[in-house]
Amino acid sequence: MTPDALIPFTRGAPSLDIIDTQGLAEATQKAFSTDPAGTFGYGTAGGYLPLREWIAEQHGVDVDQVLVTNGSMQADAFLFQTLVRPGDDVVVEAPTYDRTLLSLRQRGATVHAVDLETDGVDVAALRSLVDGGVRPALAHIIPNFQNPAGYTLSAAKRTQLLALAAEHGFVVFEDDPYVSIRFEGEPLPTMLSQDTADTVVYASSFSKTVAPGLRCGYLVGPKKVLAEVIKLATNTYISPNMVSQSIVNEYCRSGLLDRSISVVRTALRERRDALVAALRRELPEARFTPPQGGYFMWVELPEGVLVDRLAPVAREHGVAFVNGTDFLLDGGHNAVRLAFAGLSPEQIDTGITRLAAAVRALAG
Amino acid sequence: MTPDALIPFTRGAPSLDIIDTQGLAEATQKAFSTDPAGTFGYGTAGGYLPLREWIAEQHGVDVDQVLVTNGSMQADAFLFQTLVRPGDDVVVEAPTYDRTLLSLRQRGATVHAVDLETDGVDVAALRSLVDGGVRPALAHIIPNFQNPAGYTLSAAKRTQLLALAAEHGFVVFEDDPYVSIRFEGEPLPTMLSQDTADTVVYASSFSKTVAPGLRCGYLVGPKKVLAEVIKLATNTYISPNMVSQSIVNEYCRSGLLDRSISVVRTALRERRDALVAALRRELPEARFTPPQGGYFMWVELPEGVLVDRLAPVAREHGVAFVNGTDFLLDGGHNAVRLAFAGLSPEQIDTGITRLAAAVRALAG
Repeated sequence: MTPDALIPFTRGAPSLDIIDTQGLAEATQKAFSTDPAGTFGYGTAGGYLPLREWIAEQHGVDVDQVLVTNGSMQADAFLFQTLVRPGDDVVVEAPTYDRTLLSLRQRGATVHAVDLETDGVDVAALRSLVDGGVRPALAHIIPNFQNPAGYTLSAAKRTQLLALAAEHGFVVFEDDPYVSIRFEGEPLPTMLSQDTADTVVYASSFSKTVAPGLRCGYLVGPKKVLAEVIKLATNTYISPNMVSQSIVNEYCRSGLLDRSISVVRTALRERRDALVAALRRELPEARFTPPQGGYFMWVELPEGVLVDRLAPVAREHGVAFVNGTDFLLDGGHNAVRLAFAGLSPEQIDTGITRLAAAVRALAG
Repeated sequence: MTPDALIPFTRGAPSLDIIDTQGLAEATQKAFSTDPAGTFGYGTAGGYLPLREWIAEQHGVDVDQVLVTNGSMQADAFLFQTLVRPGDDVVVEAPTYDRTLLSLRQRGATVHAVDLETDGVDVAALRSLVDGGVRPALAHIIPNFQNPAGYTLSAAKRTQLLALAAEHGFVVFEDDPYVSIRFEGEPLPTMLSQDTADTVVYASSFSKTVAPGLRCGYLVGPKKVLAEVIKLATNTYISPNMVSQSIVNEYCRSGLLDRSISVVRTALRERRDALVAALRRELPEARFTPPQGGYFMWVELPEGVLVDRLAPVAREHGVAFVNGTDFLLDGGHNAVRLAFAGLSPEQIDTGITRLAAAVRALAG
């Protein structure tokens, strides 16, 4: 790291040192020699069958309830195209992933943002919204180590949310790419696994556990919804990337996935710890809840610190973040999202020192 | 081949024996070791930069005029989303690729099908259409070894079409996945290479020259159009498959691509020859123009042979084709598309013998 290089807390991407390039090369050789026809042929829109089967087993569902896509954002796009018509009500968390917000607004949906608490979306507020007559086509929920906040939906709220969805007939879109990157505490059951009313569509990805460049994500859900989404996938691209999916299949089945998750967890826990320690030391006035996993932490600065003014000053000091306002329909003016997945503990420490200096400079 | 196995002249896919799995394994090892960061990271929506640069060089354009996508159908979908609004007039060839027809109709476009002659689209008819007041957003043209007909657009008509497009301000969408699979005759210049008025958007693919399972296609066109399409790609999936594109990049730059094209050409020429010979022997009443390249041949059966009746009889005889009607808004009732790319000369010979028997059985 050169002393002046920008330290970017901006992007939800892993650093290369925690990607198992050697294991991927091995899995690739095996995939190419074991099933060249399936790997290099067109395949079908649902995805590479052995990987679909592996995912179906993990979630205890039938294979036709699984669609493997070119990254989970492509899965989101298909799902929104299938379920959301212009003018439809949809529910998102506030704050939420900025690209989801953009996608839903571009589809012409009426977006209702429900406050996210440290134990997940405010289910009581969502109930009030529904009681008030809003009929959401879906509620988009990131249950674990949420992007951008890092918060996790509690077990109790998962149950409440499922009941509410079943009662009012809306889809819970459980968007769960970070689930395996848990640093501590017990994993909570997915809403998908507790769904008895065909209300949950679940998405996840291998971007955070294997590598983003494979662009391999997936959807799991009720057969009826999945059949529609798969039809849309056929009409859009015939089939997704078989080469990648065949590599991922070998990677998962050979046990390399578990090893990779363990490496990623250990590294990101250290990065989270470095971030928390540096913030407590350098910016004791900042408020945050350390995430139990994932990539991101949401940090609220004192009221007077406006992040749209702070951002350019921070860049002059050699540090970047994403403004809280990007993740909200309104508010977030004194909040930032810090992505720690792509930076070393040393970079994080230096970055937060610079951020603190920028906050002082702005105040000064 | 078991004696009773169905011989499918249906699918535009190569057989595994003409896919260079060994070369792909080598290119993959090199890609993984040379650029792990670019291969396994997210990348950007425009595609893997070294491959974009290679494609840009091939076409003599700037790199920001190139978008590499998850297969060329995904590129088509982005382009149609960008240029075609519901109700817009669009022009296609008659017959044309069934999925293009479906895509355009699903977007709510008003589709005008202009007759395809053995030297390409009837430009005079297209001119009449435009003179009559139709204002197409785009004209979709497959210039080489067209799908489904196998015909190639002549040099003269390419010039005329470009002039017409420039005069009337419509986009020529030059959809050219088969260009490299020429068996004989001189290659004709692309319309893209002759475009001086920013009227051409060009698409091609590595599915036919390397392998379909890589899902690697691309668009080349005016900067303004490409900038819009790239924005749409970002919002849809962040970035396309970097692993595949990095493999394809190594494959192209190492000279393996030229070797693969040579293998594919030789094999498919033999298959085309087997098809033509078998048809002349078994079904002398069938009318067709042997294609100078590509995957497909369009065969017209005598007037009285209705393909929707022939199809089930043919299946009983162990052979399948795609009905001509699938590629047309109307007509094609006595035509079939025969895809010869995925079958051995022996399979083709047997398949046509069976087809002839089915025709006799239907007549009998």
